[in-house]
Amino acid sequence: MSEFVRNLWYVVAWSHEVPADKPRAVRVVGEPLVLYRRANGSVVALEDRCSHRQAPLSLGRVEGDDLRCMYHGLKFGCDGACKEVPGTTTIPPRANVRAFPTVERSSWIWVWPGDPAKADPKQVPEAFGLDNSEWAMRAGGIDYDADYQLLNDNLCDLSHLDFVHEKTLGWTSGAKWSAELPRVTTLDNGLLFERWFRNHPLSPGKPLHVDTLNTLRYLLPGIFLMTTQSFPLGAADATDKPKPLYRRVEQQSVTPTGHQRSRYLYATGVEARLATPQFMDGIFGIINASFGEDKTIIEAQQKVWNELPADRKRAFIPQDKAPSMFRKMLEQRLAAER
Amino acid sequence: MSEFVRNLWYVVAWSHEVPADKPRAVRVVGEPLVLYRRANGSVVALEDRCSHRQAPLSLGRVEGDDLRCMYHGLKFGCDGACKEVPGTTTIPPRANVRAFPTVERSSWIWVWPGDPAKADPKQVPEAFGLDNSEWAMRAGGIDYDADYQLLNDNLCDLSHLDFVHEKTLGWTSGAKWSAELPRVTTLDNGLLFERWFRNHPLSPGKPLHVDTLNTLRYLLPGIFLMTTQSFPLGAADATDKPKPLYRRVEQQSVTPTGHQRSRYLYATGVEARLATPQFMDGIFGIINASFGEDKTIIEAQQKVWNELPADRKRAFIPQDKAPSMFRKMLEQRLAAER
Amino acid sequence: MSEFVRNLWYVVAWSHEVPADKPRAVRVVGEPLVLYRRANGSVVALEDRCSHRQAPLSLGRVEGDDLRCMYHGLKFGCDGACKEVPGTTTIPPRANVRAFPTVERSSWIWVWPGDPAKADPKQVPEAFGLDNSEWAMRAGGIDYDADYQLLNDNLCDLSHLDFVHEKTLGWTSGAKWSAELPRVTTLDNGLLFERWFRNHPLSPGKPLHVDTLNTLRYLLPGIFLMTTQSFPLGAADATDKPKPLYRRVEQQSVTPTGHQRSRYLYATGVEARLATPQFMDGIFGIINASFGEDKTIIEAQQKVWNELPADRKRAFIPQDKAPSMFRKMLEQRLAAER
Repeated sequence: MSEFVRNLWYVVAWSHEVPADKPRAVRVVGEPLVLYRRANGSVVALEDRCSHRQAPLSLGRVEGDDLRCMYHGLKFGCDGACKEVPGTTTIPPRANVRAFPTVERSSWIWVWPGDPAKADPKQVPEAFGLDNSEWAMRAGGIDYDADYQLLNDNLCDLSHLDFVHEKTLGWTSGAKWSAELPRVTTLDNGLLFERWFRNHPLSPGKPLHVDTLNTLRYLLPGIFLMTTQSFPLGAADATDKPKPLYRRVEQQSVTPTGHQRSRYLYATGVEARLATPQFMDGIFGIINASFGEDKTIIEAQQKVWNELPADRKRAFIPQDKAPSMFRKMLEQRLAAER
Repeated sequence: MSEFVRNLWYVVAWSHEVPADKPRAVRVVGEPLVLYRRANGSVVALEDRCSHRQAPLSLGRVEGDDLRCMYHGLKFGCDGACKEVPGTTTIPPRANVRAFPTVERSSWIWVWPGDPAKADPKQVPEAFGLDNSEWAMRAGGIDYDADYQLLNDNLCDLSHLDFVHEKTLGWTSGAKWSAELPRVTTLDNGLLFERWFRNHPLSPGKPLHVDTLNTLRYLLPGIFLMTTQSFPLGAADATDKPKPLYRRVEQQSVTPTGHQRSRYLYATGVEARLATPQFMDGIFGIINASFGEDKTIIEAQQKVWNELPADRKRAFIPQDKAPSMFRKMLEQRLAAER
Repeated sequence: MSEFVRNLWYVVAWSHEVPADKPRAVRVVGEPLVLYRRANGSVVALEDRCSHRQAPLSLGRVEGDDLRCMYHGLKFGCDGACKEVPGTTTIPPRANVRAFPTVERSSWIWVWPGDPAKADPKQVPEAFGLDNSEWAMRAGGIDYDADYQLLNDNLCDLSHLDFVHEKTLGWTSGAKWSAELPRVTTLDNGLLFERWFRNHPLSPGKPLHVDTLNTLRYLLPGIFLMTTQSFPLGAADATDKPKPLYRRVEQQSVTPTGHQRSRYLYATGVEARLATPQFMDGIFGIINASFGEDKTIIEAQQKVWNELPADRKRAFIPQDKAPSMFRKMLEQRLAAER
């Protein structure tokens, strides 16, 4: 029984993390993969172990469309078929390695670790992308020693901004995230969160007050796509919405890389017209500080879970509803795969 | 079956390790605790995990007499009762966390991890305390990757001073600790060790020779309280003891924090009238060097134990008697709790 | 069932790693040993744990021909017999520790971890030695987090030089190691590999071409003794071999120190007449870089093995023949010991 859903598209890397001429090791649902680019730039994902003596292919060499193991020199095509063994013209049986369906979209490399016959590229959700001319974006990534579901919980309940990010993201947003819950709608592949923050300062300490609409899609297995639009005061309750004064987007992904190991990719974007380098440095500095705070509390939480007495009772609060809904969605997919 | 006695007062921190406004994580018999101070300065010990999503409360914020979890904002009183959940006025069931009896005495914070009904503050032994005007004291602490019983063994058999501390504590004491055994008396809650060192140099290489009386109480679960008094020559065998020339005290505690994890707190004191800063620096330098030597050999010993073949025979020597007596006392308490 | 053959001579250290007056901890087939030298310089190997409280004797003190435990002062002779216990004249039963047969030969210290009655010093193979006047030699050592059999595999199949050491050893040798296999002959205690490289540059980019004879004995449990001789062109196929133009030797050992822990010792030698310091620095720099490359790929390979799915099929290629023969030799010895 796997602990992970396999028949889903998972984000395994930012596009820029895989250069033209060098393989990169990544992990998804416990599987070690090697990513590399064909001569035409398209991405390949193979099992990251040679069929011969199990050396990682990510220590290998890209040769045109192929990847050569740099232990004893076996060469593999982008379908995982062994094409060459040094010193012999005979390819032995069992020499192929597994290839995984991949898609590159919205500056992310997606991999399907499940049944290849079920991999439909059209199911890959569209995000903003780092090269979107509407937005100036900055991107980063963090490895977690924690189960990905703890990260999903965190991202499906933004009430934590008032506490974990009290002096960073929570403060800059100028809103009270824990005072009331967002409206949550179930989508086919996730949840839609919508909420208005009425009459709050656009920036902390600044006189301008605004109404802000926060729209978040949180999609399976852990794709966070958020748009934040601030309007002139009164917009929250107006029937005709005016043009927003200020907009931001967040593009994030949570990927289980192994047991209690996860990778978290994030990008933040502001409207291109506003994006001076200093402004972007400031925003991205707050983002990085905030996501360091998440890592601290979530990894600490994981350690507590790991030694929790079996009879420990747990309290449920209204904020847990959305995280529980998302966990249930994953459980249903997992149950369907068994 | 626990590996630790629970119905005992354990030292979990020096008083100065818990400031007025910041919680501190400690461990005792495997339990994660958070310590913090109420507005009036008294110490509180709670289970170090929020009842909601198990974030450590030691990452939380002290608010008056209460402690707020800084993941989703639940607030707990000093009895562990949940007093506030953001966004709702209803406190959910099972939201309380466990509180532990605490006592602050002799500059130590003591916690009772067992049945609270049995926690009697009068059972907390009195030590010297860092603020005792009679003594100038310096204090430190070391974490061990070793079972606390190996530390108890070490402290119940000071013959090791001649070998482990040959060039540090053993040398400065000027005595032959391994030449003969102390007189050992059984107390209700530990052992009393007494011995005279006759006609030894007060300091190495100095002409003044003295008779020295060494009195050590080693109390459950691992409290080391030693007084060293040096007298004019002949005092050891005199019926009327003269006034001592020089006195020192040692206050130490060994606490099991987890499986093969321990915390060792120590303070050394000399008579206040002798305590120039240089003298104290010298004494404390030797103490720190010596306790680094103990850590080296005990952690190495633990590693050897962990891979000892099951059929390995062990030799017993006369020095093992007192450590064995103390182990038996702990075993009896443990058996009584089962 | 042991995972290691015990009735074999194992290399545990370079001679210079055990000075006259200081014990040294080593490991072989999972056993912790302490090495020290008697007053006459000969090497002793004892079990590295005191019979009393299991402190490592390698933290002890050499006293003449004896070794004293520096925890409580027990003293052991070079046969492992306890000779002294502080504070008593009675040596308790079970106080002896195990002593192991040792031999010092060819600058290596060899230990026999098996049945002492079977330890025959004449079975210790002769290597070149660091003090051999014919050769200028440099020596080093690396610890591996990998099973020793992965190192044996590596050293019994030098086709990896073309890939792992493509820019280091493989490049400097100027030969195509993976193009064809050496002639392999079975010896009583290992394998003999012989091969000619015909018409290759003596050094990369230099005009002089040579024929080179490579002769490697790989002996149980993992002793690598290689001679490389380069001759004028044509020598490979001549009946009367001319005098070699250039010769080198390699002396290496692979020792299992524990489960998936190994120690690899290596020395490289060139003819003394050629050995300027710059030349030796250059050679040894390439050797160290190359053996760092081996460590990288072998430790990575070990990690992949450790999480290999049970049903993973493996491909076999012609180069695997010699490593498989050597593994079979070890298995036969192991089976015989059970």
